[in-house]
Parts: sequence; C-alpha cells; structure tokens
Amino acid sequence: MSTTYNDYYPTRGRTERLIPRTDDPAVRGGVDDGPLDAEQLTAHEEKGYTQIPAVASRTQVAEIKRELERLDGELRDDERVIREPASDEVRSVFDVHRLSDYIADFIRRDEVAGVARQILGSDVYIHQSRINFKPGFGGNSFYWHSDFETWHAEDGMPRIRAVSLSVALTDNHDHNGPLMIMPGSHRTFVSCAGETPEDNYKSSLKAQEAGTPGHESLRTLADEHGIDQLTGPAGTGLWFDSNCMHASAGNITPYPRSNLFLVFNSVDNALVEPFAAVDARPDFLGSRHWEPVK
Amino acid sequence: MSTTYNDYYPTRGRTERLIPRTDDPAVRGGVDDGPLDAEQLTAHEEKGYTQIPAVASRTQVAEIKRELERLDGELRDDERVIREPASDEVRSVFDVHRLSDYIADFIRRDEVAGVARQILGSDVYIHQSRINFKPGFGGNSFYWHSDFETWHAEDGMPRIRAVSLSVALTDNHDHNGPLMIMPGSHRTFVSCAGETPEDNYKSSLKAQEAGTPGHESLRTLADEHGIDQLTGPAGTGLWFDSNCMHASAGNITPYPRSNLFLVFNSVDNALVEPFAAVDARPDFLGSRHWEPVK
Repeated sequence: MSTTYNDYYPTRGRTERLIPRTDDPAVRGGVDDGPLDAEQLTAHEEKGYTQIPAVASRTQVAEIKRELERLDGELRDDERVIREPASDEVRSVFDVHRLSDYIADFIRRDEVAGVARQILGSDVYIHQSRINFKPGFGGNSFYWHSDFETWHAEDGMPRIRAVSLSVALTDNHDHNGPLMIMPGSHRTFVSCAGETPEDNYKSSLKAQEAGTPGHESLRTLADEHGIDQLTGPAGTGLWFDSNCMHASAGNITPYPRSNLFLVFNSVDNALVEPFAAVDARPDFLGSRHWEPVK
Repeated sequence: MSTTYNDYYPTRGRTERLIPRTDDPAVRGGVDDGPLDAEQLTAHEEKGYTQIPAVASRTQVAEIKRELERLDGELRDDERVIREPASDEVRSVFDVHRLSDYIADFIRRDEVAGVARQILGSDVYIHQSRINFKPGFGGNSFYWHSDFETWHAEDGMPRIRAVSLSVALTDNHDHNGPLMIMPGSHRTFVSCAGETPEDNYKSSLKAQEAGTPGHESLRTLADEHGIDQLTGPAGTGLWFDSNCMHASAGNITPYPRSNLFLVFNSVDNALVEPFAAVDARPDFLGSRHWEPVK
C-alpha cells in the first residue's frame, strides 16, 4: 500500500527545464511575527536572501569553533563527518544541533529560530545542520545547485518552504571562496536531467553530480539575475531560500572558510517519500524527526 | 668556456627563504618620462601594481579577441597554443606580438610601451606575450607564484626589472577568477625549494609546481600585505611588477575570463644563462630577441 503525493517540482527526468515557482512564496510571515522588518522581508522575497550582521558574537563564534574541534576529535569514523578526498582534513560535521547542546541553545534564540518561523510563517524544525570547513591553499569549490532540488528528489521535501541560515565562523572575503548566489533565482525551479544513482549522497557530498543544472540553464539564470558574492566578518548571518541557485569557488588563499549551516523546514512541509530516489537519505542529511524548535 | 653571473636571487635550492629586495626599485623613471603621474608612480613602487581604466577601447578589445580566434584556428598543433587538459579548449596563445601586426601596433602606443619605459627607466623589449582564456564553468586556478622567480630560474633574467601589463578582454568580476595580488609582496623575493625538472615548462604552463612557494611563506606574505582582487570592465589595464606574489582562483561562473598579457623587460636586463635550470626555455616563453619596442 503506498500513498501518492502530488509532485509540484518534478526533477531527475529525461530533460532539463525551468519551472517558475508560483504557489510557494519565499516569505509567509509579517513584521509582527518576528525580528525582520518590512524592508528585510520584501528584499528576502525578491532576492531570496538576507544578510544579518553579527548573528553570532565573537564569543559564540569561538565556542562553535571549539565544538567543531571537539566533534572532529570525538567522531573519527562517524559517517556524519565528511573529509577532503585528498588531505583527510574535516570538511563537514553533520547533525551538530543534536551533537552539541551549545549549538542547540544557539538555535533556540529569537534571532535564529524566531527569524525562521517568521520567514516560513509556521513552527519550524531542523531538517539538517552542519559545520563546514573549507581549508585554505586549495579547498574545493561547490558547483552551482539548488538545495531544494536535492531535498525534494532525495529526501522527499514536498514544497519550497525551507530556509537556511549560514553563520560565518571565519571572515568571508571576496577571495577565499565565499558563497555566490544568483539573486532572484529562487523563483525558478531547475528540473534537472538524469537519474539519481543509489546512495548518491556518499559521493555528492564531496562533488555534486546528479541534480546539477546544465550550462544553458545556469547561463540563463546568471544573465537574468547576476551573481552576488556574500562576504562579511565572522559572525555574519546569511538567511537564504532553499531554492536559491548558489555555489562557492575554490579557495587558494591561506585563509580557511568555515560556517555553521542550519536548515529550517516548516512543520507543515515535513518529508514524505523521496520524489526521485529509491531510498531516502540518512536522518543526519534529511531529518525525519520534526519536533518544532522551541 | 663559460661566464659566471652574480646571482642576486638564488632559488630552487634546498630550503625556502624570504630575501628582501633592496637594490632593484620597482619604478626607475620620473613624471617627465611618460604618461603616469607622481601619485601613480609612488603607488606602483609601494603596492607593485597600477590599474588603468580603458587602456584598450571597445573596438581594440574586439579586434584583439578576433586575433585570438584567428590564431586558435590557424595554429592547431603549434606549441605556442596551450589547451585545457580536460576540454582541449584554448587556454593561452603565446608570442602574439609577433603573430599579430594589430597587437604589435597596440603595444607601440605611448599608453603601453611608453608606460613600460617610464616604469623601468630605459628602453624595453617584449620578454613574453600571450592571450589567456579562462573558460567559465570550471576554468582552472593559477596557484600563487612570482613570475620573476620563474624567469630568473628558467630563463636567466638577471634582475627584477621587468613589468607586465594585463589588458582585460572580458569583464573581470570578483566571482570569475580575477587576478589576486598581495600588494607590496614584490619587495620580497621568495627563494623556492626544489630542483627544476627538465622541460618543466611543458607541465608548468598547465599547473605550476617547481618555483611554487610553501604555505608558511604565503601565510607570512598574506598576513603582512593582504590580498587585493583586481576587477574591472573589459579594456581595463593592470601593470604589475614581475615579482608580485599573485594567483587567480578557479572560475565556475558562466562567464569566461580572457586577457592580453605583455611582459616588458629593460634592455639593460637582457637574459643570460638560466640561474636554476639546465636549458633555457623556448623563445616564445623567454625571448632572446631584445630589439627595443619603438
């Protein structure tokens, strides 16, 4: 016995195409629902992202970095720890909202969970959390992608109603591989061509393949929207819609780039079966525990 | 019978070390010797580079790009044409001042050769010329290096008395792999460790290896000087000292990056035997025809 879900965002089929996003607004709450003001909410709906200075204080940044070091040491061979293919240096630690009480407390704050609730217009839960570390002197690039495309195809996230917060743990310069977003691209869903290989996540966390848009779609979106590079000192917060087309270049400077990455999903958008994969990914990538953050 | 030359900048030895540059000023001419004003000359001495808007007009940019297309087509297997390892797309065409009358005329202008003469304080000749093309969607990075280190070790350039002009043939954004320079780094010569392999240039044009500074030196220089990213619209000119520590990141945007690159050497600094290689590189990489540009 299986339930059928309406697929508003078909992907991983035979051909690539651009689907306008019509029914799912990026912003559902109003000024009375949380910390963001009217201007910020309007800009978020238009550009798909909002930068907030000092979402984490110096002390908080230092504490979160200490948590990364602790977890790196404690979890040597845990599958929630992803390492650089060449150097074995840690690249990401997942599930940090469960592994660290400090981070769990950080998330509960009104400036964090409160903003997520305001943007998504409902209670929220953590779909995924991680700390990313991009080393200097050759940290890899992340190619262009929409997070939602993966979460829809491989995790079964039904609608575009999730928002991510990236908290810079190091200074993000224009030269050390900061996040690039095509502003406004969140309004278009790129339905990607190609079938999802089994256990795709094991390789895709190191280099994205299935779910990667083709050159023509990327050129169309970049010509229409341009490319913004998001820089700022450690502690800067960047809220961005789950369907933003984004990427980051490699980093050959001496300065590593590190961030805390939190994905909030609306409790009204909880996961169903994957829309374009045989099995759902593990819980640390797409959580099926949707207790609201309180 | 062999002549012995004094080696002011020993390199490719057993250990890496930083040698302060004392005897070779970056700027030798004054305000009466050419187009640059006093402020520009002082800044060039301090930072090691000078950006000039619109050194090439729109028409000139278009003509130079047409020359690249022509040469790419005419010189399929010529060793002066370097291609991307993966895609076979053209990455550089060398010797363009000899292959193209249009470019030779462009170089003779006072805004070009006149500035080179002013900076170097003498007549100048072309040590090397090329057009570089860095494709979008994955153009490679160029790792940190000093051009002079290579020209000294592998071409036999005695002193630091050469200057390069990069003319942007496409818009250089902060996100499509523009040139990065550590401003002021030209005052320090990084004596690199390691022997030069035979025919090093055949691989080093695709990925730099011998003559590459180590992490510690790069961190020291970057911490002291910072990193400037040089951006600007097509036609922008960038003069930079031959000993600047520079690099460029990979380019995953849809926008290719292309430039005309001209190296002027003082006629009083003509090549001798290589200081750290068995054979000198071919003439298209380090010219031994030092007719002054007139």
